[in-house]
Amino acid sequence: MRDYQLPLSKCIAMMKLLAFCLFIISLINIPIAEARIRHYKWEIKYEYRSPDCYKKLVITINGRTPGPTIFAQQNDTVIVEVKNNLLTENTAIHWHGIRQIGTPWFDGTEGVTQCPVLPGDTFVYKFVVDRPGTYLYHAHYGMQREAGLYGSIRVALPDGKSEPFAYDYDRSIILNDWYHKSTYEQAAGLSSIDFQWVGDPQSLLIHGKGRLNCSTAKPPLKADVCNNTNPECSLYSMTVVPGKTYRLRISSLTALSALSFQIEGHNMTVVEADGHYVEPFVVKNLFIYSGETYSVLVKTDQYPSRNYWATTNVVSRNSTTPPPPGLAIFNYYPNHPRRSPPTIPPSGPLWNDVDSRFNQSLAIKARKGHIHSPPATSDRVIVLLNTQNEVNGTRRWSVNDVSFNLPHTPYLIALKENLLHTFSQTPPPEGYDFANYNISVKQEDSNGTTSDAIYRLQFNSTVDIILQNANSMVANVSETHPWHLHGHDFWVLGYGRGKFDRINDPKKYNLVDPIMKNTVPVHPYGWTALRFKADNPGVWAFHCHIESHFFMGMRVTFEEGIERVGKLPSSIMGCGETKHFRKP
Amino acid sequence: MRDYQLPLSKCIAMMKLLAFCLFIISLINIPIAEARIRHYKWEIKYEYRSPDCYKKLVITINGRTPGPTIFAQQNDTVIVEVKNNLLTENTAIHWHGIRQIGTPWFDGTEGVTQCPVLPGDTFVYKFVVDRPGTYLYHAHYGMQREAGLYGSIRVALPDGKSEPFAYDYDRSIILNDWYHKSTYEQAAGLSSIDFQWVGDPQSLLIHGKGRLNCSTAKPPLKADVCNNTNPECSLYSMTVVPGKTYRLRISSLTALSALSFQIEGHNMTVVEADGHYVEPFVVKNLFIYSGETYSVLVKTDQYPSRNYWATTNVVSRNSTTPPPPGLAIFNYYPNHPRRSPPTIPPSGPLWNDVDSRFNQSLAIKARKGHIHSPPATSDRVIVLLNTQNEVNGTRRWSVNDVSFNLPHTPYLIALKENLLHTFSQTPPPEGYDFANYNISVKQEDSNGTTSDAIYRLQFNSTVDIILQNANSMVANVSETHPWHLHGHDFWVLGYGRGKFDRINDPKKYNLVDPIMKNTVPVHPYGWTALRFKADNPGVWAFHCHIESHFFMGMRVTFEEGIERVGKLPSSIMGCGETKHFRKP
Repeated sequence: MRDYQLPLSKCIAMMKLLAFCLFIISLINIPIAEARIRHYKWEIKYEYRSPDCYKKLVITINGRTPGPTIFAQQNDTVIVEVKNNLLTENTAIHWHGIRQIGTPWFDGTEGVTQCPVLPGDTFVYKFVVDRPGTYLYHAHYGMQREAGLYGSIRVALPDGKSEPFAYDYDRSIILNDWYHKSTYEQAAGLSSIDFQWVGDPQSLLIHGKGRLNCSTAKPPLKADVCNNTNPECSLYSMTVVPGKTYRLRISSLTALSALSFQIEGHNMTVVEADGHYVEPFVVKNLFIYSGETYSVLVKTDQYPSRNYWATTNVVSRNSTTPPPPGLAIFNYYPNHPRRSPPTIPPSGPLWNDVDSRFNQSLAIKARKGHIHSPPATSDRVIVLLNTQNEVNGTRRWSVNDVSFNLPHTPYLIALKENLLHTFSQTPPPEGYDFANYNISVKQEDSNGTTSDAIYRLQFNSTVDIILQNANSMVANVSETHPWHLHGHDFWVLGYGRGKFDRINDPKKYNLVDPIMKNTVPVHPYGWTALRFKADNPGVWAFHCHIESHFFMGMRVTFEEGIERVGKLPSSIMGCGETKHFRKP
Repeated sequence: MRDYQLPLSKCIAMMKLLAFCLFIISLINIPIAEARIRHYKWEIKYEYRSPDCYKKLVITINGRTPGPTIFAQQNDTVIVEVKNNLLTENTAIHWHGIRQIGTPWFDGTEGVTQCPVLPGDTFVYKFVVDRPGTYLYHAHYGMQREAGLYGSIRVALPDGKSEPFAYDYDRSIILNDWYHKSTYEQAAGLSSIDFQWVGDPQSLLIHGKGRLNCSTAKPPLKADVCNNTNPECSLYSMTVVPGKTYRLRISSLTALSALSFQIEGHNMTVVEADGHYVEPFVVKNLFIYSGETYSVLVKTDQYPSRNYWATTNVVSRNSTTPPPPGLAIFNYYPNHPRRSPPTIPPSGPLWNDVDSRFNQSLAIKARKGHIHSPPATSDRVIVLLNTQNEVNGTRRWSVNDVSFNLPHTPYLIALKENLLHTFSQTPPPEGYDFANYNISVKQEDSNGTTSDAIYRLQFNSTVDIILQNANSMVANVSETHPWHLHGHDFWVLGYGRGKFDRINDPKKYNLVDPIMKNTVPVHPYGWTALRFKADNPGVWAFHCHIESHFFMGMRVTFEEGIERVGKLPSSIMGCGETKHFRKP
């Protein structure tokens, strides 16, 4: 690509123009104190797009994927009118990280908190964003998230308050992996007796853009299917001004991949995780799992006359067909934003460097002065063994050998309206055969069962969840599962290796400065201990955030304080036993 | 392929075995007089299939596409429990040719007679098949029919009654065309501003089977995508015994193509059309349009030591990428059913031989002794000019320059429950600018409008419909549109060329022995005149049966006797204004 050479005067003039533009953008982005309602109108539909140069049908919001970022300020009310124009397909949208206090019916989890939104319908989500931080939204129906229905939520502090760290500019980056097959094809393969695994993604996207090499694809792809000159798949370029500090809000909504992210030659100081302030620590590679959000501070303190690579790589997965690293350009102004850095993109960490990932998990602690202390003890401990099972001839993911099946009437409605016959009332297991189950090996008997039973939690009780990893159905493989809890943040009390020791491991819990999060990994052959207060009346999903694992049953459901839930809006009804018409 | 040579004695023994088998099969297929209810349980879902050797996701019924044939006897009640396992997609199934007298709510037309059936839901269709004959069923939602959700209904005479023609065996063949793109991809292309026409089908299927040549595909296809040795795409072979008369029930559910069908060296005597007896006439090529059914008698009177080709070809469409002819084997027992005939498959008629197609249309008259005389006059004449339009930047098909938009609440419910605000109450046009519109040329102004208004017909009135064809938005092109009426059969009073003359053409109507049908073509630059009694209380779709034309708005809706419609079942509700929950 041609280098741009400009005289200094012109360069300065452009700098001024840029500064002005950034000022204008900042006016648009920074919420205005008076505006307490943030009203969005979205149309979602299928459109052809080429995020990685390969043309396929994606789900767009107002023509875009990722969808528009929701900008709000703490305590604002966000209203999103979602018009479903998917023709034959329903939808539902989850506001990931927003606890929906007082509005459990707008959590957007199809089958748990609402019926699906029919084609042609407009569903109005309305909720308060009660904490500043970095959040996400995405489809929570079938595997639609993978089709491109996702985006960011950025909640600013109220006017006059400031973050406990300084920065000049604030930027968002969503990481994703990308498949060329439709979600229908993937879902059909996953749910058939003749099981077909979705396989590795074809690309890694940085802020919705990747770049497949069309000319080396096998079999060769026609130019109307894959075209490297398509501007839609020009690499994402983030323009930065030298000598400044940038807050980068980095989030991952991968379907499958655990990622590492780095910016060539730049350190990153982690300051926020899932909306909570982190005691700052410096990384070269940020490990990030699907459903997590981080803020890092990056100083643009490198040699300014060139651009740098931002890269993302798959970790934790040893595959024969891994996607190429995801690339973006960290563009030092005034270098041309499309100018490739003069270097080879840095390679990521080894896929199986579990230690580094464990260590990053352990490093994430609440920031001093911003510590929410956890209750010293818990009222109940639920152990969730992560298992892969065979159920009636299909491959499933499970906890404690029970794979989750969604019932036909959403739980929130069933419980509130006392339709208890709509799902199993036999409680799911609180643990597994601790004494005899060897988590380190492939089980000889991998048969499991399915159930739609849920965990009913005493309101305001303190609940500990132990996520216990194990060997999958493939010998010597234990995957990383990022677990996401709806309606709450939890304290991350500890991570460990091997089998959780119910007597001794709790003694090592971090009760001093544990971070609060809504998504947390359980590392291969390891365990993760969480604590949360069941203080949010509603019904809440807790699940592995890998789209295919979730689809294959790796999820549970919690109920708490259903009697305190207010009147349900009729808009969430219309399926299962809630499908009853009376003339209005 | 190797020829099988058998000694005579073995051959006779096999003949006896075959006769016995056919006898057993006949026992299964011929309905038993006592069984008045035909109960079917269907699961519909997406599965990978290779109907023409190309592997793609199709919609199956109980694992099959085409779905199972419904066998019933006149006046039986058919109950079909449809379990929607499409994961994220709704559905609805139409019983094509069944008038649904007394059960207009089970016509299966999404948006007209019911809300869509949600994933996980089981919808129970229950209706009486009141006339013997050959009918169809298929999805009537989005473009799902094209994904493979279709099949046959065969209604036999009551015990003791016989057809006015003799035959030894009764067989069904469904013809179809087949696309490799998903219906999502097709629909997204059709409905986008950046219009993408679905194009020509890749294959023609005879009874669900075709054969793409994988090795000549461009670009080349991998063996896991296209495999000519896959038994799923071995050609359909119909085994016949020499010296017999076969009734072949031939129907078409093409998405796009008008077809001709022939059996090499065999004449066909047309005896039934859309469930009505036809005054017999002989054809070499049967022209058949999407939504039509015919019975033909074929004598297996040819040289018996070989097989013959059955072929189907596209007519009426001049395309640069036509699909290859559809092939099947008309297998004379005891030749091997997979043995290719020694001849080159016969070529079909010229695509633009409109005369032959007009002539076949004109030849189809009611059989003597089975004539239902039409009313001598009509109470109302509605002229429907078939137009292609540009509406708000998208390409549409229309009548009288008005392209149909489905409202959000199904008409049947809206009208019965008096929710008239849910759709436009401005009546649609009864005709076009007869004096000035030149049907023979591309219009300079092709702008159209959309509307969800319907035609309200006086109960028991007699209505004439004049389908008037015209030039499309492409110069010198007028397509063949097969129009299908729900809830009724109509008399076909006449076909003509050019612009319908409202004074003189009605004088030439055939009021003596017009055939009754439910689907009829309007030929290029021609007109077709229909008459029907508005005597079936309900709301009924009337539309071009080409899937993409229908999708693009080429449809109207009739209401008659809504006040006589019985209590609507709650199962059809749940969308639009019918989405209201009251605790049961």
